[in-house]
Amino acid sequence: MHDLIEVVFLRAFDNPLLAAREDQAIFQLDGASRLAFTTDSSVVKPLFFPGGDIGKLAVHGTVNDLAVSGAEPLYLSAGFILEEGLDLEILERIVASMRDAADAAGVRIVTGDTKVVERGKADGVYINTAGVGVFRREVELSATSIQAGDAVLVSGPIGDHGTAVLIARGELELESDLESDTAPLHGLVGALLDAVPEGVRALRDATRGGVATVLVEMALRSETCMLLSESSIPVRPEVRGACEILGLDPLYVANEGKMVIVVAPEAAGPALAALRAHPFGQGAARIGEVRSAPPGMVFLRTVTGGTRVVDMLAGEQLPRIC
Amino acid sequence: MHDLIEVVFLRAFDNPLLAAREDQAIFQLDGASRLAFTTDSSVVKPLFFPGGDIGKLAVHGTVNDLAVSGAEPLYLSAGFILEEGLDLEILERIVASMRDAADAAGVRIVTGDTKVVERGKADGVYINTAGVGVFRREVELSATSIQAGDAVLVSGPIGDHGTAVLIARGELELESDLESDTAPLHGLVGALLDAVPEGVRALRDATRGGVATVLVEMALRSETCMLLSESSIPVRPEVRGACEILGLDPLYVANEGKMVIVVAPEAAGPALAALRAHPFGQGAARIGEVRSAPPGMVFLRTVTGGTRVVDMLAGEQLPRIC
Repeated sequence: MHDLIEVVFLRAFDNPLLAAREDQAIFQLDGASRLAFTTDSSVVKPLFFPGGDIGKLAVHGTVNDLAVSGAEPLYLSAGFILEEGLDLEILERIVASMRDAADAAGVRIVTGDTKVVERGKADGVYINTAGVGVFRREVELSATSIQAGDAVLVSGPIGDHGTAVLIARGELELESDLESDTAPLHGLVGALLDAVPEGVRALRDATRGGVATVLVEMALRSETCMLLSESSIPVRPEVRGACEILGLDPLYVANEGKMVIVVAPEAAGPALAALRAHPFGQGAARIGEVRSAPPGMVFLRTVTGGTRVVDMLAGEQLPRIC
Repeated sequence: MHDLIEVVFLRAFDNPLLAAREDQAIFQLDGASRLAFTTDSSVVKPLFFPGGDIGKLAVHGTVNDLAVSGAEPLYLSAGFILEEGLDLEILERIVASMRDAADAAGVRIVTGDTKVVERGKADGVYINTAGVGVFRREVELSATSIQAGDAVLVSGPIGDHGTAVLIARGELELESDLESDTAPLHGLVGALLDAVPEGVRALRDATRGGVATVLVEMALRSETCMLLSESSIPVRPEVRGACEILGLDPLYVANEGKMVIVVAPEAAGPALAALRAHPFGQGAARIGEVRSAPPGMVFLRTVTGGTRVVDMLAGEQLPRIC
């Protein structure tokens, strides 16, 4: 369904900003500030899970979509769709969590809207957050800048969020201390751009569809090939274990505080050092490299020595994860 | 529920921009452009109704929230929450309608997000639109500027949208040719501000809660009293008839293409002339005046010669109308 929808939207709303297919639109007003603008709806189930809740996720999701463009997130809107009869105490907890997440990220929720729908709709609450950020740096990050020879990094162990939410649903007979990795990434992006201001080609937070989907999109847009080394990809043992039981591949599992980073070859070392020095990048790793051909493809060299194609996720591996 | 929610949000997200309690936040970036930012979710049922659909409504709602601040609407985001199994043809019609509405309003939908929820949730589709506008004029419109002696105008007959949607639900044995008034209002606002650049105190589109709710909010924020003349308030005969049958008061019924305008007394004549010269303001009328006391109150002088208090709408008179 998702691919079809994307075609519907791109065809209807055809314009250069949307066609860039980044997670945010970038525009300039009257020759003044360059701005980034993005939107994200959160429909996660359950509303509360280890390491976070729908409110925190709504703030971080939009902060991160702005952050990976290189913009500084400033202002958020919050649009709530509430199920009639939702316990106000639950709403208060969610709203308090949003406030704390916004405060911690240094952004302000400045405008809002609330709609109420009947019982049985909306699972308690859906939250849309849109965000406006401003560019304080002369940076233009884009998948189209990726070149053969570049290094592919991730900012830490992958798959935490999706796995934690899935376990929190309680439908599976699994217990774990695993927590969502939900976190605001603009501080980490800032540290990275300070360290290698010229060396960063593209950033993307690896949410729905996971690291695999981000990399396939990057390969397609840059017409390059990515070669990953499975043994270099950081995955927590408890995520690996849960994914094995659940029949999931961590490469496709959603993250909410991890990003994929493509840097020029000479920038890889300093970039990794800068990431690892930051609290949200301690587990950063170099996971692969960019080749010239075959264009638009991603390959994984497995721990057993084979090589397999990494496809884009077809459909939703895990619905209602974010 | 709505009042409680508002308290929850205002308390949690306490900041000067949100506390202004306008339908949009206004901020300035680096001493450069002054911007307006707003968000609106549409959950209207049914998705299609005479005169419009959820897509058109989503575009106009956000365009109008920007327009009534005096800003020029520029960019919209679109966040879709789709019910699994939604007919793609329906989605295509809605998206085409959004595109047409955006084109007609001169705004661009530049960034988007889609989430899919299970069957039985979301009634087909909910749409959030957030919007960014820029101030091309040195105007500061605010309910706090309203003074005793000011004139109260509406831009045309009231109650069309809510009544049309209610009839379209088909739950009532009513037939009518009535259409929603959904329309983008920034052109009308521009014509008004051209005509009386110094004379406009405050504007508000009269959506949920209708003209009555807007006026009570304005009276409370400006600490003035508003005295309305029932015989001056334009209401189409078919709206009046339907509301009588339904037990509704048109003053509380949602509009999607009408605004309440408060102007300085000397500006009332030229303002009305400018409104009436515009396609979306042909039925504009002067409906009342601002007095100094008792502050925070709105009164209606009825056609029968009595005077009654106009309260804010308690709860939702008509759920799922926008």
